[in-house]
Amino acid sequence: MNKTIENQLNHRSIRKFKDIPIDQKTLDTLLEVGNRTASSTCMQSFSIIRITDSKLKYEISKVCKQDYVNDLPELIIFIVDVFRNAKVSEEMGEDLHAKSDMDRFFQGFTDGCLAAQNIYTAIESLEMGAVYFGSILNDTTRIIELLELPKLTFPIVGLGFGYPDQEPALKPRIDLSLKVFENKYKVLDNYLESIKDYDEEMQTYYDLRKADKPLDSFSKQVVGILSNPNEKRSKMLNVIKKQGFNFQLD
Amino acid sequence: MNKTIENQLNHRSIRKFKDIPIDQKTLDTLLEVGNRTASSTCMQSFSIIRITDSKLKYEISKVCKQDYVNDLPELIIFIVDVFRNAKVSEEMGEDLHAKSDMDRFFQGFTDGCLAAQNIYTAIESLEMGAVYFGSILNDTTRIIELLELPKLTFPIVGLGFGYPDQEPALKPRIDLSLKVFENKYKVLDNYLESIKDYDEEMQTYYDLRKADKPLDSFSKQVVGILSNPNEKRSKMLNVIKKQGFNFQLD
Repeated sequence: MNKTIENQLNHRSIRKFKDIPIDQKTLDTLLEVGNRTASSTCMQSFSIIRITDSKLKYEISKVCKQDYVNDLPELIIFIVDVFRNAKVSEEMGEDLHAKSDMDRFFQGFTDGCLAAQNIYTAIESLEMGAVYFGSILNDTTRIIELLELPKLTFPIVGLGFGYPDQEPALKPRIDLSLKVFENKYKVLDNYLESIKDYDEEMQTYYDLRKADKPLDSFSKQVVGILSNPNEKRSKMLNVIKKQGFNFQLD
Repeated sequence: MNKTIENQLNHRSIRKFKDIPIDQKTLDTLLEVGNRTASSTCMQSFSIIRITDSKLKYEISKVCKQDYVNDLPELIIFIVDVFRNAKVSEEMGEDLHAKSDMDRFFQGFTDGCLAAQNIYTAIESLEMGAVYFGSILNDTTRIIELLELPKLTFPIVGLGFGYPDQEPALKPRIDLSLKVFENKYKVLDNYLESIKDYDEEMQTYYDLRKADKPLDSFSKQVVGILSNPNEKRSKMLNVIKKQGFNFQLD
């Protein structure tokens, strides 16, 4: 055990921040951590858009359907970026078909996620707090328009951060015995039985977003989420295609 | 600056390890770090397969086309896992269509990547080293078969780790000015000119995999990679579909 791991085990999402800006040097360090993150074949197929314009932040908050986006001291958005390397190869005189294949897309998506989590850990190590915004994917067409994203780029996730002004409880997790398997996937006989304790634990957790009542059991949350699919998000592949990625389906 | 960030800025991939096993307690701690990682709507849609069988490791090394997979003290493979929550909802009496939409897939893919990087950082904080294997995606059908992955699961990335038996130099990165933009994406006038210094820097980097000659310039590496697309990887969406995910294309 060490301080790094102690912080990681103590992770919780922070959604309310003190009105204290992040100084430029700290921001530069965090971005450099993102830059040093492992990258598939070192192609570095991601970029970051830092949101400083309050009108733009407002438009993003509408996509996210989360008002507190407007109050974030910092908001950065990670994107798949194959555009940059496509330009490099074009300027080398090579307009290569492979620039648009889905292998490139997933390479960039993975690069971006790894960099995001690396920065997240760095933020928490500085006694700041952060929260991911998967909700930028509610309307990827709108995010692409707002950020003026060129072809061969695509939004992945947003990351808001600052100095915490709340102290949420640790959110319980499903036991590792249901998540880690040896050599092959293990299908269980009865999932509800296996998560019985977890279901109960979740019902005692108070999410600070709705602090007046505890959460539903995990199993009810799963049903709730699967009962309310987001039409645009479930059709996200269409937008990925519009951004110039080639599917090559059988 | 602190020890966490110092380690992160000092990141390098390790591909040669001492013949020292990782003790169970350390392994448990690392997996717990994975489990505590932020997760989209807390659905925890990923799982981990730990590879301990040497024959299986050999088969995986053939997919990766990397012999040193066989010598990894530890190898864990992250997978998208929507299967678990689909079972939970089925047992609740709800067989919901949304279980198979691509929103779920990307949620799981992101969850898995974030957990992978969190574990990676924890590994490095313990003065161990690690390396990602994106190359498990060379043949996802084969990996699915080898790990007996059920429907609604899909491999993301492998992570090998142990005690380092090599000390590679820091691998240079493209400058942040080409990767971080404010409020909107910035298209540059000339990419080759902008990465000129980086191209030179890369040519002085010796990769320990082929230690007798320095790497190509970055621009030549980009052209090299785009000139050699991997047929199976570029068609990965077909396998995702076979695993039961529903595309809903326009």
